[in-house]
Order: sequence, then structure tokens, then C-alpha cells
Amino acid sequence: MPKTKARISISLDGYMAGPKQSEASPLGEGGEALHEWAFKQAAFKEMHDLGDGGECGVSDEIVRASLANLGAVVMGRNMFGPVRGDWPDEDWKGWWGDDPPFHCPVYVLTHHPRDPFELDGGNSFHFVTEGIEKAVAEAKEAADDQDVTVGGGAATLQQAIAAGLLDEILVTQVPILLGGGERLFDGLAAGAAKVDLVDVVQDAELLHLTYRFG
Amino acid sequence: MPKTKARISISLDGYMAGPKQSEASPLGEGGEALHEWAFKQAAFKEMHDLGDGGECGVSDEIVRASLANLGAVVMGRNMFGPVRGDWPDEDWKGWWGDDPPFHCPVYVLTHHPRDPFELDGGNSFHFVTEGIEKAVAEAKEAADDQDVTVGGGAATLQQAIAAGLLDEILVTQVPILLGGGERLFDGLAAGAAKVDLVDVVQDAELLHLTYRFG
Repeated sequence: MPKTKARISISLDGYMAGPKQSEASPLGEGGEALHEWAFKQAAFKEMHDLGDGGECGVSDEIVRASLANLGAVVMGRNMFGPVRGDWPDEDWKGWWGDDPPFHCPVYVLTHHPRDPFELDGGNSFHFVTEGIEKAVAEAKEAADDQDVTVGGGAATLQQAIAAGLLDEILVTQVPILLGGGERLFDGLAAGAAKVDLVDVVQDAELLHLTYRFG
Repeated sequence: MPKTKARISISLDGYMAGPKQSEASPLGEGGEALHEWAFKQAAFKEMHDLGDGGECGVSDEIVRASLANLGAVVMGRNMFGPVRGDWPDEDWKGWWGDDPPFHCPVYVLTHHPRDPFELDGGNSFHFVTEGIEKAVAEAKEAADDQDVTVGGGAATLQQAIAAGLLDEILVTQVPILLGGGERLFDGLAAGAAKVDLVDVVQDAELLHLTYRFG
């Protein structure tokens, strides 16, 4: 059965991005420290064409598994880019250049309609104005028998969890204090989702936790 | 070397107590669900004279170890009782009856001076108006070669962490969403403490995580 899933890194205080996000600092102040571990993994380097020589341990296996079998991506508008409000033009094509690392259709949640477009490497971007249910439904159809990833940010993931659309999330906890920013598990009502802890992998200071939503 | 330590249960969204704490609901709405696992453990039942027949698995070992070698306790005033402001009289002696489960000196942080008193079983209560450093210093002296536990609540733990007074914390994560209340790791500035993950034990849905502060 194809799954709708997510993979995210959080700090000890629960933040998946630091405070004061901006175009110059899309992960917020201190937010890069959440992802340094991922940038080192061989699977991540391959995905982003960052060369050879990455780490090949248990964290690499986890990143590799999270990237396998992906048929479509859903993301919030802030993850697609820094442009807010109406699209002034069609110039902004995402943070990732001519050949984004997804190689599948990407569904961007926005209140502002925009025509879809294609980039190299099997990447296409589609703009969904009817909410998270519609975006996930379109992504699942496009993904066919493969998995859908909800990329973020926090608000998009919270909407997906609250709506019962997410089957599984892999949370990598990095033992740092960010002190502010966007929390992954925030604004969800008591009992908003039934959660099972299904896998725990420790790799030195990292903790990879897989939760399944029921 | 004796340690200053803490043991706390938190929800997936990071809360160590639910919203709307009151005398009738000292753990806040839904907060009991964080502690159900602990109430079942043999070590906890022994400590609170709740009879035999508790669970004796890995979680019991962890509770037992956390209770061993305790020489003194530090707690915030809200953990001691629901009385706020000036002490109207000396009637309130804590939530625990004539023979509290600590069997050692307890240092209560408060802005309102009060004379110390003793209860059965080696329990004594001392009121510290000069802040967390002073409370921990007095507790360490009283504990001699044994450990000091900082019991909570969240504000007291955060003060202890920010002031570099806590050596170690055992966090048991329960995979539920409380949706509000008091978060353990909150209001701590970015990098307020260096944290090392030193032990990870999974027991079914529970995750026992030991962090050391440097």
C-alpha cells in the first residue's frame, strides 16, 4: 500500500525551523544546525548532486529509505519560495534551480492560483488552492502506486496530521535548543491524532523516531 | 559524584502538564495520561505504598534507578501545593499526607517566606525565597553524597537548566498529543545549554531518553 509520509528534523525543544525565517535564511536563525547531519549522508548528496564521499551508516540508510519509492510531493508555499501574496509573475520556480531533486510532480499549497510548469528531470509544479485534502488527493493520484511525501513546513504538516492524511512521519531529533521558530507538533488539539511509535534508531546524538498515525 | 537530576514524562507535543491546572486537576487537563505508565511500575507502587503487583520490566528498572540514592528534592511552589501568594497559615503541608514519599529534605521555591516543618518518615520541607541557585545549593548540602532531584514544574526545571544547575534529565516520551499546557523545553534561549543524548530505552510505546547537560 502506498503511504503518505513525511521526514523532518527537530530540535530538543521541538522546532523544525528557527526564528526569523527569510529569503536569506529560509530555515530561520540556527535552523541549519537541524540539517547538518542530513547534508553529510551519501543518499542526500546523491539526491542533490553534491558529489561522492558521504556517510554510509545507519542515518544514511534512513535517509535513503525515506527517499525511495516517491511518486509525488506536497509542500506549503513558504517551502516553495519566499514570494507572498499574488504571484507578481512566473519567474520564481522554487529554490532548486533547473533540475530540482524531486523528479516527480510537486503540489504546492497556496491561496493564489498559478499555472503549473515543468522543469528538467521529471519535475513538475502544480498549485492547489483548495486546501490540504485536495493537494494530497491530487498527489496520491499522480503518485500512482508510489508514496507521497509531505515536505513541510510546519503548518502544512499540522494540517495533514489534523486531517488524518498522514500515515507516517520520521522525526529525527537533534539535541540542540533553538529557542524559537516553528514547532512540528504544535497547535494540534488534545487527541487530534492517535500516534504509535513504531521504530527507534539511535545514531550517536541523533534519534530517528518513526510514528504511525491511526 | 552526586548528581542534580530530574525525571519527567512529556507528550509528543512536549508538554509535561496539560492545560488548566487547578487543585482538582494538578496535572492539567489530560495530564494524568502522561503518568499512567509510571503508576503501574512496581518501584512507584512501593514508593507510594500502593501495594504489590506492579510491572517489573525495563520501565520499572528506570523508575527504580531514578529513585535510588536520593538525598534531597527541589520543587516549585505549584508542585508543593495550590496555595498562591502569602501563606494564609501553616495548614497546607503538601499533597502527600503525613508521610510523603520523599524521605529526605525538600526545598520549595517560593517568593513568600515560611518556616520549615517536618513530617513522618524523614521528610522535611524548607522554603527558599532566594531563587533556584540557592535552593539547589541548600539541597546539595543536605544531600551530602547523594543525588538531588529537581521535581518540577516546568518553570523550575527551565530555571535549573538555564542556570546550568541540572546535570541530567530522564525524559519519558508518551506518544499522545495534549494540545496545550506547560512544555518542558520552552522559553530556553538558543544554545542555552549544551545537551548530550546519553541513553535511549524503548519500552513498547514509551521512550526513555536520558540527556546530560554540559
